Amino acid sequence: MNKKLYLFCLCLLAGYMGLAQSSKPDYSKITLVIHGGAGTITRANMTPEKEKAYKEKLNEALKTGYAVLEKGGSSLDAVEATVRVMEDSPLFNAGKGAVFTNEGKNELDAAIMDGKTLKAGAIASVTTIRNPISTARAVMEQSEHVMMIGPGAEKFAQEKGMEIVDPAYFYTETRFNQLQKIKDNEKTELDHNGGSGSTENIFIEGKKFGTVGAVALDAYGNLAAATSTGGMTNKRYGRVGDVPIIGAGTYADNTTCAVSATGHGEYFIRSVVAHDIASLMAYKGLPLKKAADEVVMHKLVERGGEGGVIAVDRNGNIAMPFNSAGMYRGYIKKGKSEVLIYKD
Amino acid sequence: MNKKLYLFCLCLLAGYMGLAQSSKPDYSKITLVIHGGAGTITRANMTPEKEKAYKEKLNEALKTGYAVLEKGGSSLDAVEATVRVMEDSPLFNAGKGAVFTNEGKNELDAAIMDGKTLKAGAIASVTTIRNPISTARAVMEQSEHVMMIGPGAEKFAQEKGMEIVDPAYFYTETRFNQLQKIKDNEKTELDHNGGSGSTENIFIEGKKFGTVGAVALDAYGNLAAATSTGGMTNKRYGRVGDVPIIGAGTYADNTTCAVSATGHGEYFIRSVVAHDIASLMAYKGLPLKKAADEVVMHKLVERGGEGGVIAVDRNGNIAMPFNSAGMYRGYIKKGKSEVLIYKD
Repeated sequence: MNKKLYLFCLCLLAGYMGLAQSSKPDYSKITLVIHGGAGTITRANMTPEKEKAYKEKLNEALKTGYAVLEKGGSSLDAVEATVRVMEDSPLFNAGKGAVFTNEGKNELDAAIMDGKTLKAGAIASVTTIRNPISTARAVMEQSEHVMMIGPGAEKFAQEKGMEIVDPAYFYTETRFNQLQKIKDNEKTELDHNGGSGSTENIFIEGKKFGTVGAVALDAYGNLAAATSTGGMTNKRYGRVGDVPIIGAGTYADNTTCAVSATGHGEYFIRSVVAHDIASLMAYKGLPLKKAADEVVMHKLVERGGEGGVIAVDRNGNIAMPFNSAGMYRGYIKKGKSEVLIYKD
Repeated sequence: MNKKLYLFCLCLLAGYMGLAQSSKPDYSKITLVIHGGAGTITRANMTPEKEKAYKEKLNEALKTGYAVLEKGGSSLDAVEATVRVMEDSPLFNAGKGAVFTNEGKNELDAAIMDGKTLKAGAIASVTTIRNPISTARAVMEQSEHVMMIGPGAEKFAQEKGMEIVDPAYFYTETRFNQLQKIKDNEKTELDHNGGSGSTENIFIEGKKFGTVGAVALDAYGNLAAATSTGGMTNKRYGRVGDVPIIGAGTYADNTTCAVSATGHGEYFIRSVVAHDIASLMAYKGLPLKKAADEVVMHKLVERGGEGGVIAVDRNGNIAMPFNSAGMYRGYIKKGKSEVLIYKD
C-alpha cells in the first residue's frame, strides 16, 4: 500500500470513529440534580411527618427524571418530567402548591433552557396553566419567542393544547392560611414569626425562597435546566422574580454548565447568578464547584442575597451550594441517589 | 522627625488624599452614549427629511442627559432624562412612538440599572404609562422588587404618581399603518418588503429592533444603563424581549461597564448579552471595546442575532458595535459630540 492511500484510509477511519463517538450515548455520566426551594428550613421548624413527605416526593421526582435519562431520553425531557412531579405536589411553591399573591391569586412563573442550542422558553404571571414548565418548553420549541407573560401566555398555552385548569385548582389551605397570617402581621405591625416553632413559620420566614428546579446531563452530553415557582407570598404589582429570567434563575450551556436557582429573586436577578457561574467557568477557567461557591457563598452573601443553586457540568460534576439555613435538594448519579434538606 | 512619625504622617496624608479623591467629582471623564434602535437602516431607505429629524432628536437627547452630568448630576439621572426625550418622540419605538401589537395595542417595556449599587428596576407589558423608564426607576428605588409586569406595574406607577395616559396617547398613524401592512402581508403570504425603497420598509424590515437606550459615566465614577421599547410590531401572546431582562438588554456594574442593547431580543436573551460583555471584562480582562465586539460581532453573528449595543466603562471608554445595516447612535465626551446612523 502506498503512503498516500494509507493516510487516506487512516483519515476515513478517524472520521468514522469521531462520528461514532459523537452519536454514541455515554450512560456513565448521566446526572440529575433537583431542588425544592431554599430558606429558613431547620430541624426545629420541621416535623418527622413533613420531613418524610418532602423526602418521598423529592425521591419520586429524581426517579422520574432519571428513568428518562436511563432510557436515552434528552436532558430536556428529564428536567421537564422532574419539575412536573414537583409542580403537581402541594408541598412545593410551584404549580399546585403555589403561594398566594396579595390579591389572593396564584401567579406562576417558569423557564427552561437547552444547553445544546442555547434556546430557552419562559412564562410569567400565569394563573390557569397546570404545568408552567411544559408551557415554557412550548414557548421555546413552538414559537419564535423566549418569554411570554400573563393572559397572552395563557392564550398560547391553550392553543398549544397545554392543560388548562380553573384558578381554584391552585388553592391549598396551607398556602391560603400563610397569606392571611402575613396580612394579619402587616395589619398589626407585630412580628409573630419568631420562635413559636410551628411548621407555619417555615413558609412565612422562608416565604421568598419557594421554587423547584432540575438540571441534567444526558447520555449525549447535552445539558438542560428547568425552574418553576409560585413566587413570593403576598406579592403585589405583578412582581416577577428570577425564575423566568434567563441568566438569573435558569441557564444552560453545553460548554459550561446548567444552573437552576432558588432564593430571594431580586438579588439573584441583580447578580445574574446563573450566567455568572457559567462565565466564571468559561472565562476564568474555574471548575463548577468553585464557580458556584464564588457566586452563592461569597458574592450573594456580601450583597445580602439568600438562597442557593443546583448545577451540573458536561462531565457530570455537580454543585448544590446554598447560604440559607436549608435547601430541599437531591441528585442521582452513577446509580447513587441522595436527598438532603439541612446544612449538616 | 523620627522614622515612625514620618511614616504615620505619610499614611494620614495618603488617607486624606484617597478620601478627597473618592468624593471629588472628576468632570473630565463624564460620558453619555445613546441609541435609538438598530436594524435595516440604510441610505437607500432614508429620506433627507427623516434623517434630519432623527439626528436632531438624538442630539436633543444627548444634550439633555449631558447637561445633567455637567451639573454634577448622577449617571442615573442622566440616562433617565435622556431616555425620556426619546420616549416622548414619535420617531422611536418606545413611549409615544411604540409599535402596535397584533391586537392593536401598545405594550411597553423598560429597565434601568445602577452600577454603583447593582440595584435595578424593570417593567414589562404596560399600556398606560407615559414614560416607562421613570416607572422602572421607581420600581428600583421605591419598592423591594426588581421587575413588575402588566396591570400590577400600572397600579404601582399610579400609586407612585407617575404620569398615566390613555392608551390612545400611543397611537401614531405611521405605526398603525405598519401593523396593517404586516397583517396584510401575513394574509396574502406575499413578501411586499423587498426593494420598493419606501420609508415604510425601514420599520417593517427592521421591525424587531426598535428600542432606545442610554449609558452614562458621571463625575463621581458611577455607571448607569437605561433601555425602553415598544417591542416588536405585531407581537402576540404577551411576548417580552430583552429590554426588561437585567443582564440581557440592560446591565450596569461600576467594576466593569454599563450596557444597553437593541436588536432581535430573543437572541439577546439567550446570549445574556449585556452581562456577557461585563463578564469578559471582569474574568478575561478584555478592554470594553474588545469585549463588546466579541459578543456583538462574533457570538451574536454566529448565532444569528441581529442588533447592537452601546457601552461605557468606568474610564469613559465607549463602544457602539452593531452587526445590522445601521444603528441610530451617538455620544458626548469631553465636549465632543457625534450622532451616527449608518455603518460608514
